[in-house]
Amino acid sequence: MRGAIEATGDMALLQAMLDAEAALTRVRAALGLAPEEAAEAVAAVARADAFDLPGIAERARAGGNPVIPLVEDLRAAAGPHGDHMHKGATSQDILDTALMLIAHRALGAVLDDVERVVAGLTTLAAAHRDTPMAARTLTQQAVPTTFGLKAAGWRALAIDARDRLSAVRHALPAQLGGPAGTLERFGDRDIASAAPARFAAELGLVAPPLPWHVLRAPVADLAGALAFASGALGKLAADVLVLSRTEIGEVSEGVGGGSSSMPHKHNPVRATMIAAAARQVPALSAVLYASLAAEDERPPGAWHAEWQPLREALRLVAGAARDATELVAGLRVHPARMRANLAVAGTPGAAAVLVDRALEEK
Amino acid sequence: MRGAIEATGDMALLQAMLDAEAALTRVRAALGLAPEEAAEAVAAVARADAFDLPGIAERARAGGNPVIPLVEDLRAAAGPHGDHMHKGATSQDILDTALMLIAHRALGAVLDDVERVVAGLTTLAAAHRDTPMAARTLTQQAVPTTFGLKAAGWRALAIDARDRLSAVRHALPAQLGGPAGTLERFGDRDIASAAPARFAAELGLVAPPLPWHVLRAPVADLAGALAFASGALGKLAADVLVLSRTEIGEVSEGVGGGSSSMPHKHNPVRATMIAAAARQVPALSAVLYASLAAEDERPPGAWHAEWQPLREALRLVAGAARDATELVAGLRVHPARMRANLAVAGTPGAAAVLVDRALEEK
Amino acid sequence: MRGAIEATGDMALLQAMLDAEAALTRVRAALGLAPEEAAEAVAAVARADAFDLPGIAERARAGGNPVIPLVEDLRAAAGPHGDHMHKGATSQDILDTALMLIAHRALGAVLDDVERVVAGLTTLAAAHRDTPMAARTLTQQAVPTTFGLKAAGWRALAIDARDRLSAVRHALPAQLGGPAGTLERFGDRDIASAAPARFAAELGLVAPPLPWHVLRAPVADLAGALAFASGALGKLAADVLVLSRTEIGEVSEGVGGGSSSMPHKHNPVRATMIAAAARQVPALSAVLYASLAAEDERPPGAWHAEWQPLREALRLVAGAARDATELVAGLRVHPARMRANLAVAGTPGAAAVLVDRALEEK
Amino acid sequence: MRGAIEATGDMALLQAMLDAEAALTRVRAALGLAPEEAAEAVAAVARADAFDLPGIAERARAGGNPVIPLVEDLRAAAGPHGDHMHKGATSQDILDTALMLIAHRALGAVLDDVERVVAGLTTLAAAHRDTPMAARTLTQQAVPTTFGLKAAGWRALAIDARDRLSAVRHALPAQLGGPAGTLERFGDRDIASAAPARFAAELGLVAPPLPWHVLRAPVADLAGALAFASGALGKLAADVLVLSRTEIGEVSEGVGGGSSSMPHKHNPVRATMIAAAARQVPALSAVLYASLAAEDERPPGAWHAEWQPLREALRLVAGAARDATELVAGLRVHPARMRANLAVAGTPGAAAVLVDRALEEK
Repeated sequence: MRGAIEATGDMALLQAMLDAEAALTRVRAALGLAPEEAAEAVAAVARADAFDLPGIAERARAGGNPVIPLVEDLRAAAGPHGDHMHKGATSQDILDTALMLIAHRALGAVLDDVERVVAGLTTLAAAHRDTPMAARTLTQQAVPTTFGLKAAGWRALAIDARDRLSAVRHALPAQLGGPAGTLERFGDRDIASAAPARFAAELGLVAPPLPWHVLRAPVADLAGALAFASGALGKLAADVLVLSRTEIGEVSEGVGGGSSSMPHKHNPVRATMIAAAARQVPALSAVLYASLAAEDERPPGAWHAEWQPLREALRLVAGAARDATELVAGLRVHPARMRANLAVAGTPGAAAVLVDRALEEK
Repeated sequence: MRGAIEATGDMALLQAMLDAEAALTRVRAALGLAPEEAAEAVAAVARADAFDLPGIAERARAGGNPVIPLVEDLRAAAGPHGDHMHKGATSQDILDTALMLIAHRALGAVLDDVERVVAGLTTLAAAHRDTPMAARTLTQQAVPTTFGLKAAGWRALAIDARDRLSAVRHALPAQLGGPAGTLERFGDRDIASAAPARFAAELGLVAPPLPWHVLRAPVADLAGALAFASGALGKLAADVLVLSRTEIGEVSEGVGGGSSSMPHKHNPVRATMIAAAARQVPALSAVLYASLAAEDERPPGAWHAEWQPLREALRLVAGAARDATELVAGLRVHPARMRANLAVAGTPGAAAVLVDRALEEK
Repeated sequence: MRGAIEATGDMALLQAMLDAEAALTRVRAALGLAPEEAAEAVAAVARADAFDLPGIAERARAGGNPVIPLVEDLRAAAGPHGDHMHKGATSQDILDTALMLIAHRALGAVLDDVERVVAGLTTLAAAHRDTPMAARTLTQQAVPTTFGLKAAGWRALAIDARDRLSAVRHALPAQLGGPAGTLERFGDRDIASAAPARFAAELGLVAPPLPWHVLRAPVADLAGALAFASGALGKLAADVLVLSRTEIGEVSEGVGGGSSSMPHKHNPVRATMIAAAARQVPALSAVLYASLAAEDERPPGAWHAEWQPLREALRLVAGAARDATELVAGLRVHPARMRANLAVAGTPGAAAVLVDRALEEK
Repeated sequence: MRGAIEATGDMALLQAMLDAEAALTRVRAALGLAPEEAAEAVAAVARADAFDLPGIAERARAGGNPVIPLVEDLRAAAGPHGDHMHKGATSQDILDTALMLIAHRALGAVLDDVERVVAGLTTLAAAHRDTPMAARTLTQQAVPTTFGLKAAGWRALAIDARDRLSAVRHALPAQLGGPAGTLERFGDRDIASAAPARFAAELGLVAPPLPWHVLRAPVADLAGALAFASGALGKLAADVLVLSRTEIGEVSEGVGGGSSSMPHKHNPVRATMIAAAARQVPALSAVLYASLAAEDERPPGAWHAEWQPLREALRLVAGAARDATELVAGLRVHPARMRANLAVAGTPGAAAVLVDRALEEK
């Protein structure tokens, strides 16, 4: 979780804003709008640990965003070259770009983790393709199924989550539009319309068709993919929580959590934390979706209401993905207990065929 | 809105459940599991207006879903052939399939409307490519932009909404898994695994890789696309609401709404209703996303919590799309007022170039 | 549930709007602003079943609210006296008042049901004051507790819900402010400021200190109380769902639900439906709370976004309360199974003392 | 905002947990269950700055909560007396109590701020009791009102918020129940049931009728009051944002925010930040309300999902309250512009009388 916290934390955001400013000055230099040395000078001082984070946070209150004090400090640090930085940009260009950078970085780690989850579940589903257990509906044993089919279902959702996160990550755009999204301070129109693409390329982000200050598809798409991912992992967690109940005991976490008061307990802690994330992210995503309806060329509130929910949703999904890798890697399955619990007659039907088919999906 | 209400209303749901039962019996007949005449008999009586909707709703309480009483009534109506229906299915197969049918039908109308919105905005953006107006940020005039760029932004979001809704609509799956998603009552495994594909084909839906009783990607994807669409249209509405303020007056709705007490008023009613929808759908979508984390082979609550929010979100988006067609078709633009209001110096930068580029997207 | 649906349904809303119009004409007559016969004439025709509900719903689209067409139809029905009705009011006066009437009526039934739940739980808690069972934390048996303490906890939450719902219900205000909340069409200021109090008294509602067109405390307070109630009953349901699992079997619903495919099943249907409501109401309440931030003297969207979530939240809580009465009345407790399941050593500590103390609360 | 961040931040939570542990040891000493010197020893070392916050956060992952590593470190710091601490408590006792302490502390500052807002709005409402301006409904000028009535409405909502926050704050309970809420490790039953009241008194919190590990009324009530407060202040902000639009200009913030690119701008930054908070808190509150439906004696997820949303909601409301004090203190009102904008005929009706009456509420 620490990695996830770091990737979405205040220092990470500060560094991402500095990266955006440095990239912007490089683009202006490449377009002949600033001297090359200015780009080098800004890049050289754009290191988060040299800045006063609490001070910037405090001074951010006055203007309602952290870019204004950051630009002041960065300009001071860049000395005589400072005049060439931030030109043509508005605060939102820098902050939106920084948030997309953070998302890009955090989702890279998340996708690695989800891939590990998929791999672990592939093994589990194949190993237990024919392991019988009770299917349960509305809390009651219904008919038999196999643990392999259950694991194959978890895997299918993890693949769906991976695909949605990956698609969103590959479309994360940089933001460069200037005060009103008209690129009005970039000189002639050809240069102006080239600047956003170069800026995006500098940062490894996508060039958007239009400045998206108030066309928040990228944030909404993140909202959807993150809510999906938290829920997809949440399904795995929900099942593990049921199956590891004392009275059921069909699976257990490899390394369960202890208790501050009951040393005998073996709690399904990873599943618990994933479940907790799955309860929070949909609400955060609702805030982000609601910000689509943003008036004017920069709305007074809808934009500002995105910053914290987006970072928090990223952090929660990153934590859940990490927890899920550990959960799956360590999961202990108890087929004898599954068989002993099975109190309903019947066969698992086509469960094994369904597992085979599901495992064809990569 | 009436069309939308009808497409997602109780009678529409009842008909869709009957369509699912009829299709299931046809599939069983095609697989040799039921006589052909049974399929014909069930299809002949599967008409919603012949059923007692309030009675079914009341009797639905006992078992917690409407399929149980519906099957009773349909079986009675089908006479001696009634024994061949619903075989192999569980209530969730029928209700999930019915909800996907409703979504498929409602989204067909929504997509037509959104296409009309895109077409109308194309015309507006082109016509006002160079019409200057104030860009406003944080409620204050910032620098000039053009109305064409604003309309092009609305259009870009409408296209994004269309693309997301269309992708989801084309992937809506039928549901057929039997009591525990193992297809255990469909005879041999080959037949079993063929049944869902045939069932889906009968209904014009997609065959899912696995029964998705507790793999709720289809519902979650609908949640995301609907929240996106409500917000995308909500951006258009939010701007129209600002621009049609008495003191701004830069646009007005063609047919504004009256007042029960103030006949002189010309209210932006279409924009108001779209804005109201945009405030509701994200919360409904959050409920749907939260239902991904569903325990067991059928969860006690998470599934039941989807029915009403899904229909309500569809209804709201359908209403908003219809309102948006009327809003765009009738929108009156007042360039002279835009010019008169413009209180800040500067040029609209690359606005016109951006409009041209945006209009290349189809 | 049918009662609840009826109390919050379209016909109920229509009747409540008619009640508001009739009351307003009576108040105007009492203040000498209209002839007494007009009040009688309007009251005589203000019966919902004489109006064309679908037609009013359809015509409501034009002005964005149902009061405009309703007033037209009511005026026509009232004949020559029609001119005296709706005077001084705005659409929002009628619709807000009608929604408060609906809430008042629905909550009356809800409170009766919750009182029944409290009574049933009192009996359960007392009867099982010393019945040992496992306390479970993070899904694992922890130490012993008693079933009485669990039931006392459910009861405490039900009492909390009752108290919050009751407090809100007793404060539900009528709305009468005229077009801008200034009572400007009620003649002189003394009469004007008396009118809202008389209007409220006519309808059994409270007179608010100010017109609350955009001071939405009453709706926000309803949102909170409804979310609380759905969650309080949801705790009961969540426990019943765990305890009635096949492998635990410590309680069972008296009349469980059947299955369309598995006749042997005995599903905890009442708990399932309560759990489903508890997943939806918080999101609906979030929409209502968000509408507090309403601009101007009538906001374009925030107000309209309240209508459906408020009615739906009322309907869900009414259904959950009804379900809870049946659940509690029929709940079967299995102490032998509790004892047999108990796999951890220890005593239930002060559980019995806590039950005694809890039952002192009325 | 920094004060608010500090009151709800990680260090504040750490200190509050330490305060809870110290109080618990004092209570045990007072009950004769621990030596007096142990209480003194624990209190002496329970200072947050002596602990390794990042290390505790990292080690918290293993058991799923921060109390386990904290107790280890505190025990080590307390030396031989360490054995006497945390006895009888469970992690949730400490964390819940700490969260209530944080809420108590943060709301103290919030209430002071809201009181300042009320005072400022009293002055504004009285000063502008008769200042005419346009009432606006659905974005259109409707009839005249007075600015005093608008300010009186803001004030009424601020008073409502204050009353709800204050009531909740005065009812915040300590938590002490032991592993399963049965107080089983507190010796005899009399001592056991006395311990929670003494513990609460030590900390300035309320003694609850029952341990509330899974009776989450206190958290739900906080959720409601915080959502209410964010929306109540959000109404003020929404109006200020409209009225300070360039084309309306009827009010302006005393100290508006600048822009990183447009020095001429005077942005309504305080209102913007309040509006941003009002968009986020209802969703966070929905998560908290949803956690009422918590299974067992400690739920795997619902409890953990409260920690961050509760702190974030407190932080946002604290920030909004601070912003509101500055907004109201500095608000500049422009009656001449109000008069010039007024484009509709009529009188402000009983507005002045309503202001007088509203100001009687304290």
